[in-house]
Amino acid sequence: MSIRVGIVGYGNLGRGVELALRMNPDMELAAFFTRRAPETLKTLSPAVPVHHVDTLPDFKDQLDVLILCGGSATDLPVQTPACGKLFNVVDSFDTHAKIPEHFANCDESAKAGGKVTLISAGWDPGLFSLQRLMGQCILPNGSDYTFWGKGISQGHGDAVRRVPGVKDAKQYTIPVPQALERVRSGENPQLTTREKHTRECFVVAEEGADLARIENDIKTMPNYFADYDTTVHFVSQEELIRDHSGMPHGGFVVRSGVTGAEGETKQMIEYSLKLGSNPEFTASVLVCCARAVCRMNQEGQSGAKTIFDVPPAYLSAKSGEELRKNLL
Amino acid sequence: MSIRVGIVGYGNLGRGVELALRMNPDMELAAFFTRRAPETLKTLSPAVPVHHVDTLPDFKDQLDVLILCGGSATDLPVQTPACGKLFNVVDSFDTHAKIPEHFANCDESAKAGGKVTLISAGWDPGLFSLQRLMGQCILPNGSDYTFWGKGISQGHGDAVRRVPGVKDAKQYTIPVPQALERVRSGENPQLTTREKHTRECFVVAEEGADLARIENDIKTMPNYFADYDTTVHFVSQEELIRDHSGMPHGGFVVRSGVTGAEGETKQMIEYSLKLGSNPEFTASVLVCCARAVCRMNQEGQSGAKTIFDVPPAYLSAKSGEELRKNLL
Repeated sequence: MSIRVGIVGYGNLGRGVELALRMNPDMELAAFFTRRAPETLKTLSPAVPVHHVDTLPDFKDQLDVLILCGGSATDLPVQTPACGKLFNVVDSFDTHAKIPEHFANCDESAKAGGKVTLISAGWDPGLFSLQRLMGQCILPNGSDYTFWGKGISQGHGDAVRRVPGVKDAKQYTIPVPQALERVRSGENPQLTTREKHTRECFVVAEEGADLARIENDIKTMPNYFADYDTTVHFVSQEELIRDHSGMPHGGFVVRSGVTGAEGETKQMIEYSLKLGSNPEFTASVLVCCARAVCRMNQEGQSGAKTIFDVPPAYLSAKSGEELRKNLL
Repeated sequence: MSIRVGIVGYGNLGRGVELALRMNPDMELAAFFTRRAPETLKTLSPAVPVHHVDTLPDFKDQLDVLILCGGSATDLPVQTPACGKLFNVVDSFDTHAKIPEHFANCDESAKAGGKVTLISAGWDPGLFSLQRLMGQCILPNGSDYTFWGKGISQGHGDAVRRVPGVKDAKQYTIPVPQALERVRSGENPQLTTREKHTRECFVVAEEGADLARIENDIKTMPNYFADYDTTVHFVSQEELIRDHSGMPHGGFVVRSGVTGAEGETKQMIEYSLKLGSNPEFTASVLVCCARAVCRMNQEGQSGAKTIFDVPPAYLSAKSGEELRKNLL
């Protein structure tokens, strides 16, 4: 019997989950849940019902797992614990500093409901976290490096769009190639924020706006841009749509360590992602995590979990026997 | 209390485990076991006792886990199930085709003894297997690529040394850069054996040997070299020792897949290792797997396991709380 999945929230991530489920024949998209008026939601799956999110409790026994596709700022801190009392749940909560608090809240509610809630699935947090963990376990004597990009940073784009005179904008985070090369060489450099990444902004200005002032406002913006070498390009709205509508992203996690009696042997583990679409890839991670969550709950587990707690075989629809024979 | 570890077998891998344990303060090297006369074994840890392997059963309650450092051809198929009845055990069994049989044997004996045996730990099988598994789970619509090298291939070096007139030799397996670039471009190429790797041999010939015949014997050797573009360099014994005594290795696992309604979005996951010493790195993986095995047994599990069954957090000495706070 296939795993019945509900999608909560239908933005880029929800649509990514909808599409990813089509590639996993052991899973079945059973319903969408939205805060909008359900009849107004146009999905890519007209045969799948759309319900209002308030009706979720009615579906308690009809769904094996919910994939929550809301935002980390205000949606998930409330939604995940609330849903986690009634359902197995996966979310992609990505506010790193608030993970311990979110975990504690979700753990309490999931245990109360006898369900499993997997938080912070995706690629960072998620796959990158897993690489950082494994790198430290395998090479305790070493340094971690995480680089992001080249990719669209939603939060930085939002910040640019708030600058007076800016009509629209996109922002790319770009790893500095020389920094990456220094890391790969095994040099174990100490890198400043500025040395690791550059930022590139494509800005559509309002008519008559003072471009020099906009550029200066962006480049000196604390937290977002002041600590980086930032380039600002002014483009037309047409150009922005034509050349910068994708949501590519990616990055690198490197563990550079040493082994040997005197730490004389260099060892390097590098993991990298080159993603044509950040939300579609994140969705793909959420979907296989949803499978794992069902298995963990079936075998009697409950409470909050992260990717660190998932036996990797549980991510797969295949049997242990098949995995050992063909992939080990 | 620290985890008490026994090392069985003291070659390059055993020495690597000995050194790796020094970097893991929660673990303690309690004893070596050898088939040689114990008093003849010169280890790097004179304070640690050396016992004959036949006395292993006497240590049943004094060790938390054994790390088996014998070879896959003849040692491990016998040793792992035998030791697995009495101890938690980790091995690096790497004969891919025989893994199902080895797993079944180890599962039976470990279950009989109420212990956990983790087989085929290391990097391939091991970390590379994990990447293949996760790549397939995340991107079901895609292709897998594994490249090995640049590194020393023990088996191929042995084959060269068996050629008449060869006094000594080392063999490097080298990924073809163009093949790797084609894979990284997302082209999803079908690659032949010859297109993926080249082989480079450094050979010390016996005095007066027919070099052209040796070179031809190597290049046309079935299974080992005939399907590859192979280069043979004749060098002096001194050069071989000076330039080719290391045991570097490494490689790449790439998952190239697509997402989206029409599979229109390219997504790429790449994992790579650049290892100064293959046995020291493999040993480092075995050591953190040994920690996981103890935890799995403590919580009541028994039987044979692989890296696919290990919740990644169990590889670490740190608490779940600490891992979530600092690494997620």
